Amino acid sequence: MKGPANAGTGPAHAGTVPPVAGKREAEIANPLFEYLLRLGDDRLVLGHRMSEWCGHGPILEEDIAMANIALDLVGQGSSLLKLAGETEGAGRDEDALAYFRSEPEYRNAQIVELPKGDFAFTVVRQFLFDAYSVLQWDALQQCTFAPLAGIAAKALKEDRYHLRHSGDWMLRLGDGTGESHTRAQSALNDLWRFTAELFESDAVDEAIHENGVVVDLAAIQSRWQQTVGDVVRRATLTLPAAGASSSGGRRGRHTEFLGHMLAEMQIVARSHPGAKW
Amino acid sequence: MKGPANAGTGPAHAGTVPPVAGKREAEIANPLFEYLLRLGDDRLVLGHRMSEWCGHGPILEEDIAMANIALDLVGQGSSLLKLAGETEGAGRDEDALAYFRSEPEYRNAQIVELPKGDFAFTVVRQFLFDAYSVLQWDALQQCTFAPLAGIAAKALKEDRYHLRHSGDWMLRLGDGTGESHTRAQSALNDLWRFTAELFESDAVDEAIHENGVVVDLAAIQSRWQQTVGDVVRRATLTLPAAGASSSGGRRGRHTEFLGHMLAEMQIVARSHPGAKW
Repeated sequence: MKGPANAGTGPAHAGTVPPVAGKREAEIANPLFEYLLRLGDDRLVLGHRMSEWCGHGPILEEDIAMANIALDLVGQGSSLLKLAGETEGAGRDEDALAYFRSEPEYRNAQIVELPKGDFAFTVVRQFLFDAYSVLQWDALQQCTFAPLAGIAAKALKEDRYHLRHSGDWMLRLGDGTGESHTRAQSALNDLWRFTAELFESDAVDEAIHENGVVVDLAAIQSRWQQTVGDVVRRATLTLPAAGASSSGGRRGRHTEFLGHMLAEMQIVARSHPGAKW
Repeated sequence: MKGPANAGTGPAHAGTVPPVAGKREAEIANPLFEYLLRLGDDRLVLGHRMSEWCGHGPILEEDIAMANIALDLVGQGSSLLKLAGETEGAGRDEDALAYFRSEPEYRNAQIVELPKGDFAFTVVRQFLFDAYSVLQWDALQQCTFAPLAGIAAKALKEDRYHLRHSGDWMLRLGDGTGESHTRAQSALNDLWRFTAELFESDAVDEAIHENGVVVDLAAIQSRWQQTVGDVVRRATLTLPAAGASSSGGRRGRHTEFLGHMLAEMQIVARSHPGAKW
């Protein structure tokens, strides 16, 4: 299966695509498709990681809450991949995109593909992502590409709830027992170098201005830093110092963990290709 | 931890418990508690089996649908175990009952604890259980024990949707491809001997009449046979012949599979006993 970024070998969209600035110009056949994959893959992968808690939560109430959040995220991912498929116009639906792309064709940020870890790791990652996602949806619900604005408006409501949930847990873990504090701080330290990727901008982000999708990532990053800094402080945790960061997910360069996750996620669908049962 | 059926060693409810007919009389300290465990454990265990599909469905839409059904079932189980704990009056909440009972203390019917199998097995089991559960809730929503009637009324709405879903899949699988038909029939054959247990009545069912909980299991069985027979016929499947049946789950005798499932379900909670993080 062709990767969506293989211009020249992919579907012939080139004629309808606006000029793209930057060195990746030749790679991007359809920036809007690429952008929707990034949005969708973030949610699909994170939702899958969250669903790995199904039946393993520390208390029933939290087990149910995590399953609900996983469901929202997979649902958002599904809607975004469906729209991506329509935008691509090559006949791939959300299932083809979810189950029949390989690891280098996935466009999620690396932070969402890391293994679920312990409960503290799951909470801290969810919080860092939720704080980002709420700002992203808030910007996207105002875009003039109506199908995406619609998805954003619905998802914003869901993610506001997620952020309240993960933010509450940040406080309970950080300002909880000695063990919970230690684990939350450790998770924050481990995750920090994966956060910068969320705010990276490239030619795709530029190109989709033509589609009415304008997101000010610098402004989002600034507001994200305020929210995260505020909650981390109230949770009596310490923001890690800036340091080396890891990125590349948006261009298909992933950690060792995504491949394993996809293998598990895709096995049933790939074992019965096209089967409707 | 004491099993709920250990009369004499359990909490001193004996004085308030009505006389119980049948040979298990001496075992039953609190029939209403016992009955609520049976209801709750059926849903909790089946919900957990369904949640094992999280992220492994054949298509995204079905993955999401199965996760929703799992969520409903675990939520019902949680409400029922909470009420059971209040009825027991020994300070056990739904988490204590879900995570700190061992296999022989579980009161679910064996059909719900069998491994999830392939998609056909999951669908057929869900259908057989849904058809039963809808009738059970319909009777229980009319009982005079208000907290249970309330749970039943809410659960009935959820399980009507589940039954529509699993019933549709029965038709799609049975009347689908050769492979899907074969798998559905095979699942039906394997599951059939576990269905009789759902309609067994014992001293507990008698005793809870005193609590205003009267369920005519014979009438439910008759209506269940009609529903199941009708769908099975329309799905071009064949009802298995009556034969040997397996039961004992209501008295804590389980298949080899429940222990493994509980070990996995309980590990996180048991690793952090009492921990709120």
